[in-house]
Amino acid sequence: MAKEKKVEQITSMDTDFAQWYTDVVKKAELVDYSGVKGCMIIRPYGYAIWENIQKELDGRFKALGHENVYMPMFIPESLLQKEKDHVKGFAPECAWVTVGGDNQLSERLAVRPTSETLFCDHFKNVIHSYRDLPKLYNQWVNVVRWEKTTRPFLRTSEFLWQEGHTMHETEEEAREETLRMLGVYEDFYLNVLAIPAITGRKTEKEKFAGAIETYTIEPMMHNGVALQGGTSHYFGDGFAKAFDITFTGRDNTIKYPFQTSWGVSTRSIGAIIMTHGDDNGLILPPRVAPVQTVIIPVAQHKEGVLEKANEIKERLSAAGVRVKVDDSDNSAGWKYSQYEMKGVPVRLEIGPRDIESGVCVLVSRVSGEKKTVAIESVESEVAAMLDYVHNELVDRARRNLAQKTNEARSYEEFLDCAQNRPGFIKAMWCGDEECENKIKDETGGVKSRCIPFVEDKLSDVCVCCGKPAKHMVVWGRQY
Amino acid sequence: MAKEKKVEQITSMDTDFAQWYTDVVKKAELVDYSGVKGCMIIRPYGYAIWENIQKELDGRFKALGHENVYMPMFIPESLLQKEKDHVKGFAPECAWVTVGGDNQLSERLAVRPTSETLFCDHFKNVIHSYRDLPKLYNQWVNVVRWEKTTRPFLRTSEFLWQEGHTMHETEEEAREETLRMLGVYEDFYLNVLAIPAITGRKTEKEKFAGAIETYTIEPMMHNGVALQGGTSHYFGDGFAKAFDITFTGRDNTIKYPFQTSWGVSTRSIGAIIMTHGDDNGLILPPRVAPVQTVIIPVAQHKEGVLEKANEIKERLSAAGVRVKVDDSDNSAGWKYSQYEMKGVPVRLEIGPRDIESGVCVLVSRVSGEKKTVAIESVESEVAAMLDYVHNELVDRARRNLAQKTNEARSYEEFLDCAQNRPGFIKAMWCGDEECENKIKDETGGVKSRCIPFVEDKLSDVCVCCGKPAKHMVVWGRQY
Repeated sequence: MAKEKKVEQITSMDTDFAQWYTDVVKKAELVDYSGVKGCMIIRPYGYAIWENIQKELDGRFKALGHENVYMPMFIPESLLQKEKDHVKGFAPECAWVTVGGDNQLSERLAVRPTSETLFCDHFKNVIHSYRDLPKLYNQWVNVVRWEKTTRPFLRTSEFLWQEGHTMHETEEEAREETLRMLGVYEDFYLNVLAIPAITGRKTEKEKFAGAIETYTIEPMMHNGVALQGGTSHYFGDGFAKAFDITFTGRDNTIKYPFQTSWGVSTRSIGAIIMTHGDDNGLILPPRVAPVQTVIIPVAQHKEGVLEKANEIKERLSAAGVRVKVDDSDNSAGWKYSQYEMKGVPVRLEIGPRDIESGVCVLVSRVSGEKKTVAIESVESEVAAMLDYVHNELVDRARRNLAQKTNEARSYEEFLDCAQNRPGFIKAMWCGDEECENKIKDETGGVKSRCIPFVEDKLSDVCVCCGKPAKHMVVWGRQY
Repeated sequence: MAKEKKVEQITSMDTDFAQWYTDVVKKAELVDYSGVKGCMIIRPYGYAIWENIQKELDGRFKALGHENVYMPMFIPESLLQKEKDHVKGFAPECAWVTVGGDNQLSERLAVRPTSETLFCDHFKNVIHSYRDLPKLYNQWVNVVRWEKTTRPFLRTSEFLWQEGHTMHETEEEAREETLRMLGVYEDFYLNVLAIPAITGRKTEKEKFAGAIETYTIEPMMHNGVALQGGTSHYFGDGFAKAFDITFTGRDNTIKYPFQTSWGVSTRSIGAIIMTHGDDNGLILPPRVAPVQTVIIPVAQHKEGVLEKANEIKERLSAAGVRVKVDDSDNSAGWKYSQYEMKGVPVRLEIGPRDIESGVCVLVSRVSGEKKTVAIESVESEVAAMLDYVHNELVDRARRNLAQKTNEARSYEEFLDCAQNRPGFIKAMWCGDEECENKIKDETGGVKSRCIPFVEDKLSDVCVCCGKPAKHMVVWGRQY
């Protein structure tokens, strides 16, 4: 079946990955550009993906006892300044409200870039005794970080995210929470988004402003570039001290609580696009796809075809599948291209001869693999095909991750990888920021992604300076 | 059972309704005040109510074919100015971003007070043919209107809401949508929030800036004051012309589409509090209550009591009831007061003697009515009790609305009502804004709430000026 224009207009990934990305987000109708610099419009199809992401994550958070709240979007400048590392990190990228109604404000208000300061200001009011702990809060909100160059989902001045903020009685509990939530993200990326990823700890240089430890999940995009998929921070009692949050402990002494925060944003949609997509467009992981199965009636003018298509739709819908029938006047070929572009994981074709034989055809969006199945058992067959597509995506992404992860034992090897082999580089590191800076400068942007939980011992010395190595680091370019 | 301090600290409604309100929102742990002027923190218990409201409304919107989207939160000043009535209405209450990062912006950005202009800017890109219509969009977002005096939920500088924005091929369709969505709100207020209300059309003076017609739902609070519970606007093609949104019609000519918008906000939580609450605190309508039934074990140290309480909890939970057991060390009396304060609709008491007899006791938060029921059928009994509480709330609110709605056939009568009888006043009106202004000035704030869909003919002349009457208007003070 000949592809029609709509699809041919996409730039090939290999020709120009950035242009391919832009083509896909526009032509799959995920976003529209707005007249506001750096801000995107999330269209119905894109927003439906976000709603499914929210549902999956929110369920996991609540199952672990987290409660949703809503903090104000404005942060008075003096409040932002209470924790000095934090303000240094965020103040330069804030949008500032200076006028309210007709009046110049006496104090500027930052539009929240993140909400640690607001949560702390509130925690002070509601934490008094160990009985008030832990506080396990989360919010789903918009945040703003003023960006110079922006790209839909990947880097926008305004984006949507969830930010979890928790307070604990002991350091141990808080550290556990930090890692537990990273684990939730890892599970979510793999089992919902079909994205395997490297996880680990950020270096001092790369950690969140004000955190003691930052843990990260770093999926690799199809082109070998990393995307920070989510982070989980352990703060110790630093903010608590800065904000004077105290509680009476079990031993009747006054103590400071221990804090975490963690977040995943609409960038995760960028990760989906760049991990799974191909030259025919988007490929959506079944568990967040707004339409999991599209039914295309073949020769739909013939008697009984549309009726059967709609009957199957009702049955699938009753079985919990997000399904639609396209009974428009467009050609079957146009429809195939259209839903490939939109990344619908499974296509179900049904025509007069199929109906006679009591079958229909399921097609995987990933491999194009076709399977003829009995209409009788269409519910279980579609469910199995959706799982199959999920697994196909995971396998493919795993292969990409493995193929594009290199090891470097010398600086020459490192520079060679950085220049000629897109992907991650595993290499030993002495622990000095100086080496990180040197690597970044001399490679034009390769940075430490993380110190993974399991480190290989590639050699005894830092790949950069030759001093004794402290850690194995995964390095890479990033979005 | 003696009430304990916690409850005794609430101001009585009759003594000081405003203070009662403030006491309830704080002590029921719905909100906390933030350090940001006019912005509130919505705490877990308050936010859970909002999540239930969202679920109910969002389901209704989607069932009618609406899709969720996300527009940027910033509106460039030039965009806001495109529709002249609209900017006149909203510019004076905008918060303005003037600095981004370290740079003064060349154009100020308003933090959205509402998003008609942003939607129109996008509609221009996606509407080309009658085939692109209707566009039925909605978004759940935060908005900002700079307020001088604020009160939690009722009037805050930042609040949460949904705003629906739709575009239609014909005026008729758009007008139908406007009324359909008002109908959705009416159904939602009555059948979910247990709040009966008056609905109708706003006068010219009171309508939304830029709209041709504004329809409103106006519930009456316990003290007789109105709260605008939601509005639905018909815009004609005014914005479409200002934003140059056109489409090719079925007859192949270029046309302007017709537009609506409609919204309900976190003010609806204020309506719940002030419609249903009493001197013991909050009363939550069962269908949005975060906890619908609280189980209080009596003599919980006795063998088998906690086990039975938890068994009932599991059964209710499996039946879809939002339920919790309070097995804390606090006294039963303290617990009763606590959950009355928090407005939990049904309390379930169970003690050793109940267990022996195979029964438990259900108590309505509204009337205090008790019912002994068989544990065997606890699921259906609790479901029935929740419906009963819903109906009790509706009946009580209906009585309040009827008792506090007066008719005035002369101006003296009108002024007497306005001064001495809190509530709505039905009175005839000539249609002139002058009379609305005079009434507002001479009563210290009574305004037209709406022209209801069914008007009584109380007399032939305007209650204010004596000229021929055009409409019966429902008048009242408002939050």
